[in-house]
Amino acid sequence: MLDYKLLEALSAIVDQGGFDRGAQQLNLTQSAVSQRIKLLEARLGQPVVVRTPRLLPTPLGQRLLNHAQQVRLLEHDLLDRIPALGEGAQRLRLAINADSLATWWAPTLGDFCHRRGVLLDLVVDDQEVALRRMRDGEVAGCICATARPVQGARARALGTMRYRVMASPGFAERHFAEGVSQQALERAPAILYGPEDRLHQRYLDLHGFKDPFPHHLCPSSEGVLHMTLAGIGYAMIPECQGSDGLSRGELVDLDPQRPLDVPLYWHFWRHGGELLVALTAHLLSAGDNWLRAPEATTPASA
Amino acid sequence: MLDYKLLEALSAIVDQGGFDRGAQQLNLTQSAVSQRIKLLEARLGQPVVVRTPRLLPTPLGQRLLNHAQQVRLLEHDLLDRIPALGEGAQRLRLAINADSLATWWAPTLGDFCHRRGVLLDLVVDDQEVALRRMRDGEVAGCICATARPVQGARARALGTMRYRVMASPGFAERHFAEGVSQQALERAPAILYGPEDRLHQRYLDLHGFKDPFPHHLCPSSEGVLHMTLAGIGYAMIPECQGSDGLSRGELVDLDPQRPLDVPLYWHFWRHGGELLVALTAHLLSAGDNWLRAPEATTPASA
Repeated sequence: MLDYKLLEALSAIVDQGGFDRGAQQLNLTQSAVSQRIKLLEARLGQPVVVRTPRLLPTPLGQRLLNHAQQVRLLEHDLLDRIPALGEGAQRLRLAINADSLATWWAPTLGDFCHRRGVLLDLVVDDQEVALRRMRDGEVAGCICATARPVQGARARALGTMRYRVMASPGFAERHFAEGVSQQALERAPAILYGPEDRLHQRYLDLHGFKDPFPHHLCPSSEGVLHMTLAGIGYAMIPECQGSDGLSRGELVDLDPQRPLDVPLYWHFWRHGGELLVALTAHLLSAGDNWLRAPEATTPASA
Repeated sequence: MLDYKLLEALSAIVDQGGFDRGAQQLNLTQSAVSQRIKLLEARLGQPVVVRTPRLLPTPLGQRLLNHAQQVRLLEHDLLDRIPALGEGAQRLRLAINADSLATWWAPTLGDFCHRRGVLLDLVVDDQEVALRRMRDGEVAGCICATARPVQGARARALGTMRYRVMASPGFAERHFAEGVSQQALERAPAILYGPEDRLHQRYLDLHGFKDPFPHHLCPSSEGVLHMTLAGIGYAMIPECQGSDGLSRGELVDLDPQRPLDVPLYWHFWRHGGELLVALTAHLLSAGDNWLRAPEATTPASA
């Protein structure tokens, strides 16, 4: 069998982004950790990490990390007990999209984490990165808009998140007094989550709008909400996140006829063990309160 | 003088994280952009970017980017007008800490952005990264807890953000029924922003607590708040962010005698032009509503 002490060292340095901090995590000296990595590389005859400009696993290193995380999940099953919080608690590293974390994720997971003694290690990513993390074995599961699972994983539809284009009443009056038009879209500053905000692009496509437009960039789901509330720009906001602002009159829906639906899928390893199976069942049953049912995207009859 | 077309190409590919997307931003072909980078490197006799494992500026490239951003700010002054939104609008790239973006930032900036026609390009970072971005010329300003400015910049105290250790009533009852003790800290899952959450460490230091403890990781300010509200763990939460939850009884302050204050400083380039000067004045006058006055940290009389 593989020497799991070596894989643990690899996992720690990649997790912590450095040999020194990885060593700390394992309560080892840095030289002990270096030794383990060197031994691992010597046995495999290939490097498992690159060191510059920052520490990253090689493709081989990534396959090893993937394997190590799967083994950890299986070990958890083997112990076959509800772990007490503390030493015995099970860590689950998951990648989720920022809008889910800002809305339905925590209320849905609260009870599950407590009941199962799970510690979450969340990474927030756009969906391509999230799927790459799945493929690389960095995370045990992810939430994203892609239906197709990576090799070795399954994907289940959770429901759809509905987005509406929103602004403060003052901003709407200044820029969209006569509704959403080419002219308005050309001049009104939008708030995008990042330079490649495909959701906003999808909205502009609905209007056949192709020109450049002024925009702010704000890589935080609630930062976008706060900036919209403050009248800094207009933005695509999840309905469930903006509903309070809408009902209090702090936000207006600029284009009620054109909501955009984004399907969300839960991806998880096929042989990830009992805890992932239970989490999957929990997500599938609990997401309903926040997300629109998967069926709702295609009308039952035309 | 330098050939600014070449610097513009460098700026675009670094900004967009690739030659192809950088070329798109400039409406050029990828080969035209490659040519410009090659020409720049040939003239300087040194590389300005490294290409693998991902595109990053070299130290020389970073100095050029810094210079280009300063020139852009000075050009803006030269035009000496309140820019109309759209083509003439001025972009300001700023690094701010997640808790500021989640609380006082947007309400404070709303009016300023509108009045001055400013488009914000925000990056959210922990403070060391933010200061490195300042040094590298990637951002025109940043907000962080460090008082000392990087070379060529100034720093001004904005006030302090007060944190309190909070949990849901149910979580508090389960884990802290008898107050905050070594035993409770050993078993109660904390929610940390990242593996190196120094604020949480500062809190544990107040209790002389040095042992390992179970923790979730959630790299989102409001994700931490939501997870705390959902009873998933306890966390250090900005007073101004948790006050609604406290007053509604959805959160409790676990340790009212031990708030932690974090000073916040606004760093900006010394020769950054009139817009940065105006933003500085605005931040210094408007922060008061959200942050505690810088003086408040040391009592006027003992």
